[in-house]
Amino acid sequence: MKTRVGIIGGTGYTGVELLRLLLLHPEIEVSALTSQKYAGLPIHQVFPSLSNRIHLTCEELSVDSISEKVDFLFAAVPHKTAMETVPLFHRKGKKVVDLSADFRFRSAEIYERWYQKHTCPELLPESVYGLPELHRSAIRTARIIGNPGCYPTGALIPLIPLLREGVISSDHIIADSKSGVSGAGRDVVLGSLFCEVNEGVKAYKIFDHRHLPEIDQELTRLIGKKVEATFVPHLIPMDRGILTTLHLRLIRKMKAEEVLTVLQEHYGKEPFVRIYPKGKLPNTKDVRGSNYCDIGLNVNESGERMVVVSAIDNLVKGAAGQAVQNMNIMLGYPESLGLDVIPLFP
Amino acid sequence: MKTRVGIIGGTGYTGVELLRLLLLHPEIEVSALTSQKYAGLPIHQVFPSLSNRIHLTCEELSVDSISEKVDFLFAAVPHKTAMETVPLFHRKGKKVVDLSADFRFRSAEIYERWYQKHTCPELLPESVYGLPELHRSAIRTARIIGNPGCYPTGALIPLIPLLREGVISSDHIIADSKSGVSGAGRDVVLGSLFCEVNEGVKAYKIFDHRHLPEIDQELTRLIGKKVEATFVPHLIPMDRGILTTLHLRLIRKMKAEEVLTVLQEHYGKEPFVRIYPKGKLPNTKDVRGSNYCDIGLNVNESGERMVVVSAIDNLVKGAAGQAVQNMNIMLGYPESLGLDVIPLFP
Amino acid sequence: MKTRVGIIGGTGYTGVELLRLLLLHPEIEVSALTSQKYAGLPIHQVFPSLSNRIHLTCEELSVDSISEKVDFLFAAVPHKTAMETVPLFHRKGKKVVDLSADFRFRSAEIYERWYQKHTCPELLPESVYGLPELHRSAIRTARIIGNPGCYPTGALIPLIPLLREGVISSDHIIADSKSGVSGAGRDVVLGSLFCEVNEGVKAYKIFDHRHLPEIDQELTRLIGKKVEATFVPHLIPMDRGILTTLHLRLIRKMKAEEVLTVLQEHYGKEPFVRIYPKGKLPNTKDVRGSNYCDIGLNVNESGERMVVVSAIDNLVKGAAGQAVQNMNIMLGYPESLGLDVIPLFP
Amino acid sequence: MKTRVGIIGGTGYTGVELLRLLLLHPEIEVSALTSQKYAGLPIHQVFPSLSNRIHLTCEELSVDSISEKVDFLFAAVPHKTAMETVPLFHRKGKKVVDLSADFRFRSAEIYERWYQKHTCPELLPESVYGLPELHRSAIRTARIIGNPGCYPTGALIPLIPLLREGVISSDHIIADSKSGVSGAGRDVVLGSLFCEVNEGVKAYKIFDHRHLPEIDQELTRLIGKKVEATFVPHLIPMDRGILTTLHLRLIRKMKAEEVLTVLQEHYGKEPFVRIYPKGKLPNTKDVRGSNYCDIGLNVNESGERMVVVSAIDNLVKGAAGQAVQNMNIMLGYPESLGLDVIPLFP
Repeated sequence: MKTRVGIIGGTGYTGVELLRLLLLHPEIEVSALTSQKYAGLPIHQVFPSLSNRIHLTCEELSVDSISEKVDFLFAAVPHKTAMETVPLFHRKGKKVVDLSADFRFRSAEIYERWYQKHTCPELLPESVYGLPELHRSAIRTARIIGNPGCYPTGALIPLIPLLREGVISSDHIIADSKSGVSGAGRDVVLGSLFCEVNEGVKAYKIFDHRHLPEIDQELTRLIGKKVEATFVPHLIPMDRGILTTLHLRLIRKMKAEEVLTVLQEHYGKEPFVRIYPKGKLPNTKDVRGSNYCDIGLNVNESGERMVVVSAIDNLVKGAAGQAVQNMNIMLGYPESLGLDVIPLFP
Repeated sequence: MKTRVGIIGGTGYTGVELLRLLLLHPEIEVSALTSQKYAGLPIHQVFPSLSNRIHLTCEELSVDSISEKVDFLFAAVPHKTAMETVPLFHRKGKKVVDLSADFRFRSAEIYERWYQKHTCPELLPESVYGLPELHRSAIRTARIIGNPGCYPTGALIPLIPLLREGVISSDHIIADSKSGVSGAGRDVVLGSLFCEVNEGVKAYKIFDHRHLPEIDQELTRLIGKKVEATFVPHLIPMDRGILTTLHLRLIRKMKAEEVLTVLQEHYGKEPFVRIYPKGKLPNTKDVRGSNYCDIGLNVNESGERMVVVSAIDNLVKGAAGQAVQNMNIMLGYPESLGLDVIPLFP
Repeated sequence: MKTRVGIIGGTGYTGVELLRLLLLHPEIEVSALTSQKYAGLPIHQVFPSLSNRIHLTCEELSVDSISEKVDFLFAAVPHKTAMETVPLFHRKGKKVVDLSADFRFRSAEIYERWYQKHTCPELLPESVYGLPELHRSAIRTARIIGNPGCYPTGALIPLIPLLREGVISSDHIIADSKSGVSGAGRDVVLGSLFCEVNEGVKAYKIFDHRHLPEIDQELTRLIGKKVEATFVPHLIPMDRGILTTLHLRLIRKMKAEEVLTVLQEHYGKEPFVRIYPKGKLPNTKDVRGSNYCDIGLNVNESGERMVVVSAIDNLVKGAAGQAVQNMNIMLGYPESLGLDVIPLFP
Repeated sequence: MKTRVGIIGGTGYTGVELLRLLLLHPEIEVSALTSQKYAGLPIHQVFPSLSNRIHLTCEELSVDSISEKVDFLFAAVPHKTAMETVPLFHRKGKKVVDLSADFRFRSAEIYERWYQKHTCPELLPESVYGLPELHRSAIRTARIIGNPGCYPTGALIPLIPLLREGVISSDHIIADSKSGVSGAGRDVVLGSLFCEVNEGVKAYKIFDHRHLPEIDQELTRLIGKKVEATFVPHLIPMDRGILTTLHLRLIRKMKAEEVLTVLQEHYGKEPFVRIYPKGKLPNTKDVRGSNYCDIGLNVNESGERMVVVSAIDNLVKGAAGQAVQNMNIMLGYPESLGLDVIPLFP
């Protein structure tokens, strides 16, 4: 029997991507979908791309009614709403992958410095930061997952083995990230208009983006020493994709091949991490629509400086795909079940 | 046991799309891939999007060697090369779906007027124009399929029931089509450069595009009366998609709802045709990456003029997806096996 | 001494384009700018592209105060607001080019069928439809100009000589138009979001777009016989540009060269119309940022059917540029003064 | 009397941009244009955007014939060809702005390490690196200008005052640059095809791009101490624009406002540098088509790290516009004559 899954707030770009993935998952049945904005409307009227594939009507959020219909939940509502909603389902015994920031932080204090008062700090200790490449075993038994932000996913995957193996200095970590526009969500705001974004590129929220403390938290936990990375996000005129360019310092002189070997050994068995050979660099276009994180790098002639580049699809590995990956782990399914979509090129 | 499939000329955009679809097909194994240009190179080095998904090396075309390795063939080489190659495999007893124009025409004369001398006219009578919505039963027993052009696919699917049911005049058929750039293939030509195409739109080959005789052939066969449509293709700054806007005259006054009923009745059971309700019009974005053909329409106040719009992904329903659909029919698989990909939105 | 010009509602895309053009106009000084939304803000904070080029602060609309500061006015407010505002300045003796639809129609009845009640019908008889290629002499003495819609501009310029000279049938006029997204304005609506528009193309408002009655009015006046064109607009993923594809029937058989001669003779002296030689078709990219209307065409083999294509920049010849052209005529300046910008390619 | 100007190799994107600017320059007449590829063809047939604006035919390169027709030259040919051609005109007494790399380096040795053997090293000492903001007085009397690369222009303009005033450490300079596709030129190569570039972003030539030694040369000369910057270019799906994100370390703790004051004081009188106030960051879209370099920045909370962002149009300030600016200085014209184009937004 299939697992019945519900999506809370399923009418943003992450929501429609969750539906695309779950509708092809052989063990999942999407049995409920809530939306404040579109309650009463069949979801294929919100997203015509789903026509003929799903007959589900958006409903108002009712914890009791939804709980009866589902075994597992994805929360795709904004932060703040998430911490008001997720606990209600948690109390009903439902496992939840929350795609907001509300359960990503171990420390309520850090959360509150970057977001707002946390109304449910008692659940933070048991929620798990859902980066399978880092926390797979904890995810297996978790009941609440804080699904990572898109930028942190692209930065952390390459950084983790490099820091853990002592390849790079923790004092000189710079993540210069380039994101497609879907990362801003489906909110109707001036800055997301086609004519404001198309044919331009800009940096924003330098030193000031809420994904920075997420990166710092995980790197600090990893090496047990305070890490303060520099993170600069940019907006790029494309729908999907994040390219993260990491400017790093090597602790001892190394060649590109040696660093690639470290990455290969660390990630050789990961289903969704692809390490590129020397001389090849990733392009977000080659991961579009898939759950892959592609990584390439180069080292300078003196062997002291290194630039590592990762590419993900922000809506898949950076959101919905990673959420499904977490669900698979939590429910004991093969980790890549339903996630074997191949990148759409071109 | 899986069917072993070979792709002749698999390194264009149609080739990589065929691979994307076939790699997820549960009954197919891609066992050979030829490329003059990339012979000797693993295909994932040509298309990094396929990394970790396929371990196949491009090889030179050898009919004997390929024939031993495959049960079924897709030819994705240019016209002319196709009619020199396909017959060789045909003689070996292999079924072939040819994606070029070489086996689309019943009349060598028409072919020769628009292309060049046909070197294999004796195979034209037994080859079938591979539009499943029109020729499904003939496809079932065919051994050579001329896979339809992308533009004709988008134009013919809505036109067929309207002409067959006598809804529209055959003297006033205008197809104004808008295509993404991948329709021009992966040839390295000035007109396909990013900076030549981006932020612009143009018509090309007015009255002079080779897909016109394909449209005329099928419509003429359908109603047994010479049809001469007007066809104007346009190039749009996007990767994929064809929107076909059909400007039509109704034979008797009708309302939009009545025409939609005709389409619904005709296509209600088709797995890949989606008829939109009144007031909704298709967008290529909602079919991207999928095998769907979405159709919407409107009728003017007097009930005399009608505009019908169809949307397809030129690389899927307009090429590789339709080819796989034809293969499924020819091999007796369920028609949508491996083709249940959901459109990638956004 | 320079003419002092004011812009009412200058913070949409048409407004910033007016500023771009007027700031380079040697005889104009922009001396007032109103904006409900941005009142109190320097305009370069609204549009950083104008930094260092203009020191003007958006102000609330006050007829008395503005009237003292300006000799001439552009109204770039939405329809309805325009017909409430323009008359106030008209009474003060100011000449106005209104970029809304409110003064484009000779008949209040037609206006009211497509828009709403007209609150100022008494000014319609003296307002002039500001298409210089058609109404130059009336514009010269006009005191209110209804600046044409972007789509009608692209359709009318090629149609006028063809209808006037009896080249084409008035019963078979189809305009299939493709517009960049700036045509939808800077309103913050879901349908203008980058991820909704990018990588897709759609038709909209088939038989139902408000620019249709504008086309019909001018063609009907031109030949003194009711013309009912078909008009289908499409949205294309680019910032600027309208390509209009006209599907036409020739009254007597002609060759492309003959029709081109008709156009050349009619438009040879026009500063902003460029007729392409046989075999060349226009691209919106080649007019971007300029006031040109480029025209190309082809005739079918039998000489009975013709497709004419025009390209304009919707914000220039389709809005702000044409408005400045009208101003030049009204004020007795050389018609192309300040409008000699060369298209930005690529 | 106007200065007669020739363009050698005027049919790439830089060539057409030079023409766009020079055709509006009040003191210049373009009197010759050479192109190997298009010799014999009127330039408006190569670039329809120039139709009706210029009647000049591309000719083969003949030093004698060109020299008679021109007073001043732009060389827009590739490197290597440039150093074979420029000296010929130099000997004829013509002043030349060369847009290739051949006369940018003071040291033939550095040139030869990154490019090839320099066949004309004797001219390097007298050629001047044409960054007006840095070398204005030398440009005034120069007879050969090595017009800066696009990336170095975007990086150097913000770095110069920060290094000169001792604001930043010269050991931690990282330039992470994002360029539109026109930077790759009009060469017909696979990597510049629309479908390869669109909807993707990638880094390339990490530690290995030929613009790096240009940056290092100028910074080293500036402070008299070897500077080795890190430079990583990226390709972005847009026509024009370079955004350069500089990751820097402050020598002593400063606030953003203080650094902005340094920049304001240094560049307050520059016609083409615009310093943004605190909290505002530049977007390439706001400089498109213009000669501006816009600069914004932020400093981290501790005042130790700084990110500075600059935006230019790679074809204007990064190539043709800067070339015209150099010409103006060399010929004694006002520096911004003919360069007062306002950015095209949107």
